[in-house]
Amino acid sequence: MSNSRIYTAALIVIGDEILSGRTQDKNISQIAKWLNVQGIRLGEVRVIADDMDAIAEAVNILRERNDYLFTTGGIGPTHDDITVDAVSKALDVDVIIHPTARAILEKYYADKGGVNEGRLRMARVPDGAELIENRMSGAPGIRIGNLYLMAGVPHITAGMLDALTGTLEGGAPLLSSTLGAWAPESEIADVLRAAEKAHEGCQIGSYPFFRNGTVGANFVVRSTDAHELETCRVALKAGLEEAGYEVTDGGI
Amino acid sequence: MSNSRIYTAALIVIGDEILSGRTQDKNISQIAKWLNVQGIRLGEVRVIADDMDAIAEAVNILRERNDYLFTTGGIGPTHDDITVDAVSKALDVDVIIHPTARAILEKYYADKGGVNEGRLRMARVPDGAELIENRMSGAPGIRIGNLYLMAGVPHITAGMLDALTGTLEGGAPLLSSTLGAWAPESEIADVLRAAEKAHEGCQIGSYPFFRNGTVGANFVVRSTDAHELETCRVALKAGLEEAGYEVTDGGI
Repeated sequence: MSNSRIYTAALIVIGDEILSGRTQDKNISQIAKWLNVQGIRLGEVRVIADDMDAIAEAVNILRERNDYLFTTGGIGPTHDDITVDAVSKALDVDVIIHPTARAILEKYYADKGGVNEGRLRMARVPDGAELIENRMSGAPGIRIGNLYLMAGVPHITAGMLDALTGTLEGGAPLLSSTLGAWAPESEIADVLRAAEKAHEGCQIGSYPFFRNGTVGANFVVRSTDAHELETCRVALKAGLEEAGYEVTDGGI
Repeated sequence: MSNSRIYTAALIVIGDEILSGRTQDKNISQIAKWLNVQGIRLGEVRVIADDMDAIAEAVNILRERNDYLFTTGGIGPTHDDITVDAVSKALDVDVIIHPTARAILEKYYADKGGVNEGRLRMARVPDGAELIENRMSGAPGIRIGNLYLMAGVPHITAGMLDALTGTLEGGAPLLSSTLGAWAPESEIADVLRAAEKAHEGCQIGSYPFFRNGTVGANFVVRSTDAHELETCRVALKAGLEEAGYEVTDGGI
């Protein structure tokens, strides 16, 4: 029996490289999708510069108003990796060398020149933290309270998410169902509004596109209740057909 | 002579589709790059759900602590497009139909079935707003005070940015120079730190990668001062070479 409470998470993406436009973020979307499967909703994301005070401020605001807070980025070996320091500041705890993290790094770097000062930075954690397994490279992720500090490199984050799968308490996963039509969304706005209004607990998102010289849109119905979702989907499909559009199940 | 003051902007990405993971955001990166060229730094991004109060709260916090605030998304014709309402609430002004926007839409939709209720939503603006030209489709963007409300669809936003180019007061553009090396960043962390420390006003970002079975990293030096940037780049290159790595100008 699934839990009917709604669980929420926030995400802080840490890194000047996202704010400068140099790097295209890929973690928001992969963490959002992973959270959906855990029955947790991503409610807010902030992208913050490599700045101690800005990170600490965002950490304290978001960890208090969400069940979970994830961060990505800033846990590597270089001078611009300050997430552990900023989180420790926010939580008012010391930074310590985690003995298991140190052992993992010593093993990982045994045939790669050993652990130097930069590499040892990756064993630093806020006092009281546990490690999150890194299945891709050496340095682990970090959990402390409801905070999860993940890597910035998307495929390393993916491995950490995999290691966390099933370990977070969540509610009913958010289900979705998609319909598509070659309809300008401006022609069927009232159909969407009526369908959403008539089905409590359902949300309808409208995502227009322009392809092969023609406009169309996909309509994503979302609900945690499978029955409501299906009822809303059927009503929306009927409304769109009544408005004169052919509807494609699963979207275009 | 360029202005030495630092101008900052924030961005609010509005839309459940980003938070659900359905859509991969592309606006953060394109707006960040465009701002750099205008001499304005993107300091913070928030991704917010389609929720009036959450949007209004973020608008009021971010418009006050930045020179400019951009939003993307939520200015279309459907029920989930509530950016204009949320911004009007934040600014405590009425929502009005902008006569020029209405005329633009009437012309655009003249041979597409005319302006209906949904389409007329796209002429709604906070009282006192000006329009931002939309070179791709009908509905314009909106400027009020230091707020710029842009489309969610990236190529429409691109057209609006193009229309705004050169119209925002900015400082010296942030310059950057990239070096690459097949070096594990954990081996050269001290070289990076030393180079950054020795060159005031320069920041060095380290961006590791894993290609063809080997790790490497690109190092991006950023400064608004071309001379400092070049001095720092030369020093960093020498440091990396001294550490035994071949350095590629422009990055790998």
